[in-house]
Amino acid sequence: MFSYKQLQDFCISVFQEMGCPIEEAEMAAKVLISADLRGVDSHGVARLIGYVRLWKNGRINPTPNIKIVHETPSTAVVDGDAGLGLVVAPKTMEIVMDKADNVGTGWASVKNSNHYGIAGHHAMMALERDMIGMSMTNASPLVAPTFAKERMLGTNPIAVAIPANEQPPFVADFATTTAANGKLEILQRKQEEAPTGWVQDADGNQSVDASALKGGGALLPLGSDRVRSSHKGYCLGSIVDIFSAVFSGANFGPWAPPFVSFLPLHPNPVGEGLGHFFGAMRVDAFRPADEFKADMDTWISRFREAEPVSPDQKVLIPGDPEREFEKIRKLEGIPLLDPVIKDLEEVAAEFGMKFPL
Amino acid sequence: MFSYKQLQDFCISVFQEMGCPIEEAEMAAKVLISADLRGVDSHGVARLIGYVRLWKNGRINPTPNIKIVHETPSTAVVDGDAGLGLVVAPKTMEIVMDKADNVGTGWASVKNSNHYGIAGHHAMMALERDMIGMSMTNASPLVAPTFAKERMLGTNPIAVAIPANEQPPFVADFATTTAANGKLEILQRKQEEAPTGWVQDADGNQSVDASALKGGGALLPLGSDRVRSSHKGYCLGSIVDIFSAVFSGANFGPWAPPFVSFLPLHPNPVGEGLGHFFGAMRVDAFRPADEFKADMDTWISRFREAEPVSPDQKVLIPGDPEREFEKIRKLEGIPLLDPVIKDLEEVAAEFGMKFPL
Repeated sequence: MFSYKQLQDFCISVFQEMGCPIEEAEMAAKVLISADLRGVDSHGVARLIGYVRLWKNGRINPTPNIKIVHETPSTAVVDGDAGLGLVVAPKTMEIVMDKADNVGTGWASVKNSNHYGIAGHHAMMALERDMIGMSMTNASPLVAPTFAKERMLGTNPIAVAIPANEQPPFVADFATTTAANGKLEILQRKQEEAPTGWVQDADGNQSVDASALKGGGALLPLGSDRVRSSHKGYCLGSIVDIFSAVFSGANFGPWAPPFVSFLPLHPNPVGEGLGHFFGAMRVDAFRPADEFKADMDTWISRFREAEPVSPDQKVLIPGDPEREFEKIRKLEGIPLLDPVIKDLEEVAAEFGMKFPL
Repeated sequence: MFSYKQLQDFCISVFQEMGCPIEEAEMAAKVLISADLRGVDSHGVARLIGYVRLWKNGRINPTPNIKIVHETPSTAVVDGDAGLGLVVAPKTMEIVMDKADNVGTGWASVKNSNHYGIAGHHAMMALERDMIGMSMTNASPLVAPTFAKERMLGTNPIAVAIPANEQPPFVADFATTTAANGKLEILQRKQEEAPTGWVQDADGNQSVDASALKGGGALLPLGSDRVRSSHKGYCLGSIVDIFSAVFSGANFGPWAPPFVSFLPLHPNPVGEGLGHFFGAMRVDAFRPADEFKADMDTWISRFREAEPVSPDQKVLIPGDPEREFEKIRKLEGIPLLDPVIKDLEEVAAEFGMKFPL
């Protein structure tokens, strides 16, 4: 078990060793550990070694000049200058929130970025300013569209954060696939089968082999199969891809750069780096903030009270499970798996440090 | 088989008999029949009798004063004045497109409206102005959130239309449930079972009974069950509900008014009428239009060429099936089922007309 402070100090030091200025090292550490706090372990410090390897391969610029390359009063295209997505994302959220201050809403598509961590963190930045936040990103191709054998899309998550008053905020944050890759990896370690509808094998047949992805298979879009509307998950993943990468001029679809440094970049890229899309809408661009938030309180409490199928499991509001994790982990600390600790020790050794410091 | 002209003339006459001004009768007929043309038969002239019954019950105002009640340069809240959603929707799309002309994007949430027909029609209006269009609406509660027995959400569709250059546009238009209610009704008529994952019974157990909904059951969110991530479909349906109804002050969640006139309105409404949400983003608010559209051409042709599982079924682009229907039905006419023809004859008799005229 590790305290927030331990992980924070370590991550900041590592990002500084990579050459990041202190403010940006702090920003990146905050995004990364927010995933661990919220129980999204696949996107937290477990990924630190991945970022370090990309940096060693020259794919991450620790001192990027992140700038707007095109804009209107409500929109921007941002060039991430190959910076850490963990820094490019919160900086772009500031841009869209400032635009929302001026004209009601702000929207930005980002090119030339890298993996941006947990989508929900960026959307939630808007809550402090009484805004609705949105965040999405494209990612390494692992997902086969309906009827396809080939991997064409990433798990392309969507996050939407909406403030309430007395109730906690509504925070949806989900991959547009049936299951995230991290869940398959857990089953592989346990040598258990995957549920049907998560994955297909290299021939495009549905599979319960949790290693099917490693064997050349693909993750399935939300909906799982044609009968249960996998084309809708394919639509959603495509919308995320187009908003993130075609709007900005990043690499889209099967051209999206891989997160892992051992896979080569596409020899004929169609754009620059990875793409993201962010939005902020001022609550009072639609209704007086107190009216809006009072209605959100009603919405949330009514859905919480929806009659459950079983008395043992109440209906949840998007964001509830992550809030529960955060409450516990802030108090008790953050558990890390042995392979993750080993990776962090390897990162530490790389820079002549110890983990924990 | 009926020609477009036959259905158009009939619908326009009916809307005029209801008291709609000629321009609005034409607008409503166009939206309605666009669904029949595109093969979305459940949302076309089959629904005309439903609108007439709502009007007879005093729930539709044929001469609404549709107006902006709150706005910023990029946003508006529109009061539909209990008008036909078929008219309120295209009028609001004009508002968001004009805002996009001015500041890059435009967004509107609508209250006090009624069923707005096929979501995709409204999103596609943006294509003619080189904009990305978005359209969503809440609807009568038929859907149980994950872990719930109770119907809390509508089928709450999302439509996104994105222009290309030489390729046809990308048009996603889908309910946020696994299956639409219309598909269950078809199985009921054929006395066939429903696939698993579409519906649950009144106790909240998954069911293959195509009549389960009529017996007090509920439609399931996209994803079908917890293991296959129905909570993501529940998130999507909730986002549509909140953007459409909490942003505007319409009735949200289980308070959404029913489409069918024989069901009473909620005795304690939390807002006014049904809600919608629309968006328009100018393509050149992000990139020069020709660059953007050339990349969309690449996106579309690359996905079309994705390696298929079977040589008999190529990978489709969102909008392909509907375009195929439209091509055929424009040439050959629109087939109507006998019960629909009977309904239209009943509507005709109501106003001393004939169907077809």
